[in-house]
Amino acid sequence: MGTQKIIITDHLHECLTEEIELLKPDKIFILTDSNTHEACYPLIKDHPLLGEANISTIPAGDENKSIQSLMFVWKSLSSFGASRKSLLINIGGGMISDLGAFAAATFKRGMRCINIPTTLLSMVDASLGGKTGINFNGLKNEVGAFYEANAVLINMQFLKTLDKQNNLSGYAEMLKHGLIFDVPNYQELLNFRFEKNADLNKLGILVQESIDVKKYYVNKDPHEQGVRKILNLGHTIGHAFESFAMHSKKPILHGYAVAWGLICELYIAHRQCNFPKEELKKLIDLIKDRYGIFEFTCKSYDKLYEYILHDKKNTKGSGIISIPLLKERGVVSLDETVDKDLIYESFDFFRDFMGI
Amino acid sequence: MGTQKIIITDHLHECLTEEIELLKPDKIFILTDSNTHEACYPLIKDHPLLGEANISTIPAGDENKSIQSLMFVWKSLSSFGASRKSLLINIGGGMISDLGAFAAATFKRGMRCINIPTTLLSMVDASLGGKTGINFNGLKNEVGAFYEANAVLINMQFLKTLDKQNNLSGYAEMLKHGLIFDVPNYQELLNFRFEKNADLNKLGILVQESIDVKKYYVNKDPHEQGVRKILNLGHTIGHAFESFAMHSKKPILHGYAVAWGLICELYIAHRQCNFPKEELKKLIDLIKDRYGIFEFTCKSYDKLYEYILHDKKNTKGSGIISIPLLKERGVVSLDETVDKDLIYESFDFFRDFMGI
Ligand SMILES: NC(=O)c1ccc[n+]([C@@H]2O[C@H](COP(=O)([O-])OP(=O)(O)OC[C@H]3O[C@@H](n4cnc5c(N)ncnc54)[C@H](O)[C@@H]3O)[C@@H](O)[C@H]2O)c1
Ligand SMILES: NC(=O)c1ccc[n+]([C@@H]2O[C@H](COP(=O)([O-])OP(=O)(O)OC[C@H]3O[C@@H](n4cnc5c(N)ncnc54)[C@H](O)[C@@H]3O)[C@@H](O)[C@H]2O)c1
Ligand SMILES: [Zn+2]
Ligand SMILES: [Zn+2]
Repeated sequence: MGTQKIIITDHLHECLTEEIELLKPDKIFILTDSNTHEACYPLIKDHPLLGEANISTIPAGDENKSIQSLMFVWKSLSSFGASRKSLLINIGGGMISDLGAFAAATFKRGMRCINIPTTLLSMVDASLGGKTGINFNGLKNEVGAFYEANAVLINMQFLKTLDKQNNLSGYAEMLKHGLIFDVPNYQELLNFRFEKNADLNKLGILVQESIDVKKYYVNKDPHEQGVRKILNLGHTIGHAFESFAMHSKKPILHGYAVAWGLICELYIAHRQCNFPKEELKKLIDLIKDRYGIFEFTCKSYDKLYEYILHDKKNTKGSGIISIPLLKERGVVSLDETVDKDLIYESFDFFRDFMGI
Repeated sequence: MGTQKIIITDHLHECLTEEIELLKPDKIFILTDSNTHEACYPLIKDHPLLGEANISTIPAGDENKSIQSLMFVWKSLSSFGASRKSLLINIGGGMISDLGAFAAATFKRGMRCINIPTTLLSMVDASLGGKTGINFNGLKNEVGAFYEANAVLINMQFLKTLDKQNNLSGYAEMLKHGLIFDVPNYQELLNFRFEKNADLNKLGILVQESIDVKKYYVNKDPHEQGVRKILNLGHTIGHAFESFAMHSKKPILHGYAVAWGLICELYIAHRQCNFPKEELKKLIDLIKDRYGIFEFTCKSYDKLYEYILHDKKNTKGSGIISIPLLKERGVVSLDETVDKDLIYESFDFFRDFMGI
């Protein structure tokens, strides 16, 4: 994100004007999903420079982050004469920015694009840092590229129409960022609540801090060869919960999975790296309070462990689970090797704590 | 190609061993087309490190540089558990290296790949320099990425089974390289003939020189923002001939189109930039001798001009034709604005000279 401009602004129109004047695109294209076309596109559709923009809309939902949607976007670009100097504006959550930026990365070997994230998750995570892609062959993000949007323009007003669950989903990544880096407003972050009329200005400050954390690690390691893996805190076990829930036909939002994954991974950190007990207690209480209960029985441990192995096999292939663990807030040990026993113990702890 | 290793070798097996030992892939995949599977794969199939490699083969022909083939390659990689550390070896001409390297560029956001070019065109051009892609929406290379193969391993023996037309197709790009840079063995290049039992060692020396020229310009401008456009010499009018022939259902090989395009563009250079007359004469005689005649009537000038405009519209949009022209051998003027009249005059010259 060295070259990636990320701007939180109350003046989206002016900001967009500036970026467009800077990029001087020969044509402008817009991508939305069906929901963001309804809820978000109206906020910019009267922009004078977008009068002739070509709009593509795909159905909402992560199952549409697919090769079919990608071909649909390529086709629109191609048929309406996009060039490498044209601009694609992605208006939506992570589904839209992942798909749209990947389309931009690969259209004529790379055209310009701007992300306008409209979910909290995409504001603090998905729309930044250059990971783009689609799901393929039943696997998440199996196909993609590293390609940074020329600019990311964030306007907190979009969150007004976002439901609480999706706000909480993004909040989980903010918690993660607050844990892997000593952010100034950590306490404010913990206290923030997504009530009706939540203070979006205050949230904007927390979002900025969260972005800075991601920026910091991405700049150090743009292609995820090493330290960027820190951003996967909570995700090893989180992904297992996500896959498990999906295969049980009770899918959960990504951020919920991460939040619950954090409980297990913080417990493991406590046992293996002396992550402080009081801090653990405070966090897991908060997560239970905000995200509620995730249920599974001890009969599912093997299945969950299998998902973890599958997630990790690509880098190791040996059955060794190596994940980033917190020693304390802001201090991460990158490649901790974790025993199967301790992982099972963390499941026990999780269920005990959830009272299931 | 700063980091791209390009090796011409008589010891393909040893070379491949070295590269594999360097890259330490967790799995190896091979991509061929139906012809190279027959004619080229046998030359390496007994390699001890390829015993467990997974082989994918797609039908030969540029119409298969398609999204369908791309999905087939992604699917093979995915289903057989490829990771970012796996290696894809592309064995074939430009069709295979463009497609295979694009698949590698986009599988899990980038896995390793090695090109083993088996046509002269891919040895001196297509397999080098990081341009990858597929045809889409009826347009050549509409979708793709810049992604350099980790290594390009060249063995001249592959050319033994390549037909004369395809050898001449590659030779046209070598002529182009010999024109845009003062290569030491220019005279040998002009004298080289693809007879039965042509001296492949001698050709190897000329291929090395040709590669060095491409390398030189690609390193200066990897993403084709400026000087790399020099490599398009002969291609503006060449592409028009290629499109024209294709739409007339008498498709011609890319290199033939380039060779014929060179005749017109050298004539224009002579008229506009004083490219020396004797040099022009020598070259067009040679091209006519090797590539024969390409026929069109003056009724087709407008159509040809339309193709040229379409090719260029992406950068200008104004109907102005701006192409690189030679002042003399090795001295290029990058952005010469050429009048419609002069282009039509070059068509006249071409037809006169061809005796049609
Ligand atoms: N590239 C990365 O680094 C990265 C990081 C994290 C997640 N991701 C990806 O992001 C995706 C998840 O992102 P997401 O959670 O934003 O999902 P999403 O884009 O699917 O959005 C969630 C839902 O909210 C709707 N929506 C979006 N903005 C709205 C608004 N302002 N008002 C009302 N409804 C709105 C959407 O239509 C959708 O139904 C996944 O595909 C994930 O893989 C990518
Ligand atoms: N990426 C670049 O910079 C670049 C540059 C130039 C061309 N290209 C692309 O390269 C492609 C053309 O490449 P090409 O001319 O190598 O075409 P190709 O790969 O289609 O090969 C031509 C024919 O020769 C056959 N063949 C290949 N090697 C053989 C061998 N050793 N013996 C017998 N038969 C063999 C192939 O099966 C095919 O039928 C086009 O798609 C073009 O767009 C790319
Ligand atoms: Zn996440
Ligand atoms: Zn060419």
